[in-house]
Amino acid sequence: MKSSTTETPAELTAKSLAAIEQIQGKLDYGTWTQNERIALSCRLLAANGHAETLAGQLTVRQDDGTFMTVPLGRGFFEVRASNLIRIDKSMQVIEGSGAANPAIRFHLWVYNARPDVRCIVHTHPPYVAALSMTGQPLKVAHMDATPFFDDCAFLPTWPGLPMAEEEGEIISRALGPKRSILLANHGFLTATPSIEESLYLAILLERCARNQLRAAACGSIAELDADLARESHDFLLRPEIVKTTFATMSREYLAGKDVCVIS
Amino acid sequence: MKSSTTETPAELTAKSLAAIEQIQGKLDYGTWTQNERIALSCRLLAANGHAETLAGQLTVRQDDGTFMTVPLGRGFFEVRASNLIRIDKSMQVIEGSGAANPAIRFHLWVYNARPDVRCIVHTHPPYVAALSMTGQPLKVAHMDATPFFDDCAFLPTWPGLPMAEEEGEIISRALGPKRSILLANHGFLTATPSIEESLYLAILLERCARNQLRAAACGSIAELDADLARESHDFLLRPEIVKTTFATMSREYLAGKDVCVIS
Amino acid sequence: MKSSTTETPAELTAKSLAAIEQIQGKLDYGTWTQNERIALSCRLLAANGHAETLAGQLTVRQDDGTFMTVPLGRGFFEVRASNLIRIDKSMQVIEGSGAANPAIRFHLWVYNARPDVRCIVHTHPPYVAALSMTGQPLKVAHMDATPFFDDCAFLPTWPGLPMAEEEGEIISRALGPKRSILLANHGFLTATPSIEESLYLAILLERCARNQLRAAACGSIAELDADLARESHDFLLRPEIVKTTFATMSREYLAGKDVCVIS
Amino acid sequence: MKSSTTETPAELTAKSLAAIEQIQGKLDYGTWTQNERIALSCRLLAANGHAETLAGQLTVRQDDGTFMTVPLGRGFFEVRASNLIRIDKSMQVIEGSGAANPAIRFHLWVYNARPDVRCIVHTHPPYVAALSMTGQPLKVAHMDATPFFDDCAFLPTWPGLPMAEEEGEIISRALGPKRSILLANHGFLTATPSIEESLYLAILLERCARNQLRAAACGSIAELDADLARESHDFLLRPEIVKTTFATMSREYLAGKDVCVIS
Repeated sequence: MKSSTTETPAELTAKSLAAIEQIQGKLDYGTWTQNERIALSCRLLAANGHAETLAGQLTVRQDDGTFMTVPLGRGFFEVRASNLIRIDKSMQVIEGSGAANPAIRFHLWVYNARPDVRCIVHTHPPYVAALSMTGQPLKVAHMDATPFFDDCAFLPTWPGLPMAEEEGEIISRALGPKRSILLANHGFLTATPSIEESLYLAILLERCARNQLRAAACGSIAELDADLARESHDFLLRPEIVKTTFATMSREYLAGKDVCVIS
Repeated sequence: MKSSTTETPAELTAKSLAAIEQIQGKLDYGTWTQNERIALSCRLLAANGHAETLAGQLTVRQDDGTFMTVPLGRGFFEVRASNLIRIDKSMQVIEGSGAANPAIRFHLWVYNARPDVRCIVHTHPPYVAALSMTGQPLKVAHMDATPFFDDCAFLPTWPGLPMAEEEGEIISRALGPKRSILLANHGFLTATPSIEESLYLAILLERCARNQLRAAACGSIAELDADLARESHDFLLRPEIVKTTFATMSREYLAGKDVCVIS
Repeated sequence: MKSSTTETPAELTAKSLAAIEQIQGKLDYGTWTQNERIALSCRLLAANGHAETLAGQLTVRQDDGTFMTVPLGRGFFEVRASNLIRIDKSMQVIEGSGAANPAIRFHLWVYNARPDVRCIVHTHPPYVAALSMTGQPLKVAHMDATPFFDDCAFLPTWPGLPMAEEEGEIISRALGPKRSILLANHGFLTATPSIEESLYLAILLERCARNQLRAAACGSIAELDADLARESHDFLLRPEIVKTTFATMSREYLAGKDVCVIS
Repeated sequence: MKSSTTETPAELTAKSLAAIEQIQGKLDYGTWTQNERIALSCRLLAANGHAETLAGQLTVRQDDGTFMTVPLGRGFFEVRASNLIRIDKSMQVIEGSGAANPAIRFHLWVYNARPDVRCIVHTHPPYVAALSMTGQPLKVAHMDATPFFDDCAFLPTWPGLPMAEEEGEIISRALGPKRSILLANHGFLTATPSIEESLYLAILLERCARNQLRAAACGSIAELDADLARESHDFLLRPEIVKTTFATMSREYLAGKDVCVIS
């Protein structure tokens, strides 16, 4: 498990090193501002089924200890850089209009326990929701699922509506030092140093849950060799891959619109 | 089970009370008229797969004992505030043009048995239809399914086409004082004091059936603790949550249109 | 099983009779020409996933013994009243340009065996395809599936590419006097006196296969009482229901277009 | 197994010969340039769910031993004839801008072992991904799956990220002389003499995996008679069928756009 996006190439295998060398400096990460990347992330979450109800939040810790987020009742489909809110550590709105989602309380517990984390995504998308009802953890049985290898915790019981201090303590403890966690009877959390990485893992996790449910309905699932999975985990979480994926998904979303919809 | 949207905050837990206090007065419920909310509800039902056949009705009881509804053969995708019909207790059209859906007869039985009910939604969406073929009731195994905790009845046998008095009697008796009912080999019914709440439960129920089918195909399902589920039931059915969800889903639907399509 | 759309109301139950009386004369069947209804049917098939490959045909018998159809390689998504072809009994094109689909040969066998049939639809949509791989016939376990009650044959083995006389003989014999047939490892056929009815059954059948697969993945399926299913079969195949469903689906398809796309 | 698209009609059965004769010369293959067909193929892959991550490549061998492909990070949804790159045998970019996807290394192994191959498609679409997690090979249990009869290899273990020489050797050896291969815990490869054929098989394979997963979730799968499957394999891989399918899918894609998006 690695919670930083700044591991040096020296930690990678020779194969990965050669691949990184081949692509470095030739990739397009986009030039969106922080708040535009928040808006893009919310739009991508909505477009990928992560916003069926009011539940679900994205928060980004700022250098001054405040947090940027989306007000309760603002659909992820309509988020713009200009309609975010800034809240303080007691969840009071100090910039923008609307109310903070009461469930953000448990984000604060995670930020407190994990100084490396700058962005948390929490949603209940359909396949993660269904998987969360089975009592089974995520299985890493596909190359594209390796970003969760030894890096996705599991909370096996539902502590109730995640709006009080108790649930914050339970969830942050269960997450530990990992990037992601599957919450039984509920949803998931991704917590990393960047908006791009938390969004990338959120989108991936829903797809991995989908694939696992479809495979499991047909019988047994063949998990991956641990060493190969770890190598793939480290490569697929390289900033070059994460940032390029974020930019490509964002361009695809924006390509369907006539005018800029996120500013 | 609670069939009213007006329970006082005093009935809520301390956690829920604090959450409600945080958000009250800061939410956008929209300003649509009654008939526009009926049109929006039909559009949302169509957009969420609830209108694959002519079957399915939405009715709203008026103060004078008449009912607003959609004529048979008017697709839910094309309903407007201006093309509804008003019918009397004998299902005669007294305003607008077209015929009442013969299946509305069983709605009248429910309205008669339940003075608190103002809006009934009945459809056969795909996942509810599939679940209704298995002989199994809805299971509450996810936080988002708690609005159905101890509040979704089950009619285990199909009484035939729901167009005569007999089926009305059977269905209204099976519903009892609950908000929702799953009808074996058929579909579902939501019956509450408001358009927003019946629509919200209708959309949720189809998603819960979807999640249950996907989870059940992989093995056992882990249901929720009863006390936590009840607390969540009461919170997620608060008018603040119901109305904000309705408004957000409606804005998302309308955002995809160039001009107003519901007036 | 009834293969005619002209059964008299006297054959219906009292409940159905009352319902028909309530709606008769108040429904909108549209005013499309025969060839426009063919084009609409093809567009609806494409929009509902029935045209993933070149396979699939729709034919309509004319009074003079010729047939209207779509040339091979014309996608169902692009069919217009003006780009159909007319073929004779030896599958020669006598009007329009392009080649007849070689698989139409088995349609001719059905038309020969069934003087009541005027329109045949044959496709391989995804859920019917999957169901056809399981070796199981269609089960009637939902009200909306009753148009197939005792009225959907089953060919349990695949006779090979359906392009020679032998397959025509096998398929027409297996169909017998019924409206529909499920073809193992292949697809389905609907054969009725009207374009609207064959299209309606085609769309319904794919949805029934979908629901059956989803229900069966979770365990056993509870089939319907035979008498109630038969009553519902007869009602849901009334011309009022069939034509109104066709018109509603067609208006929904056309509502998504800026200009007329079928003429 | 046949890896050539130029088998003479003499190799076909009488039934297939008659069908080919009926349609030859009456089909529309389009007039797109090679690079436009590459762009169309990428767009079709994206539209069919083959491009959820950065993984996935399409390469086309040129007469001079170089390869046309898509640079890493260029989404398949946005490929044009004008933004492709040309690379040499050491994966250096010699025309256009951007970096080659490091995984193209294993394509080179296949091209080296298979002089007949001109186009390789490799992706991880959702249903192939799920099937690849089950440890089961593709089953040919539907007429539309017969292009894979005795013509789809299976690599039962994942050798790790496919970026070094070792994986290229393993994958090319496992493919052998076949057109397609399913890669456990990973995805698939189609390798044929033409862009149209590799694309056609790629799209088909994902649909076959989908159908197999849905059927398998309900019980056993009934496979096809070998002789009939082989006859259908040969017919459905005829250039007339392959090229017409490619052209029809391409027109359908382009029909949804206002202007030309692939030049």
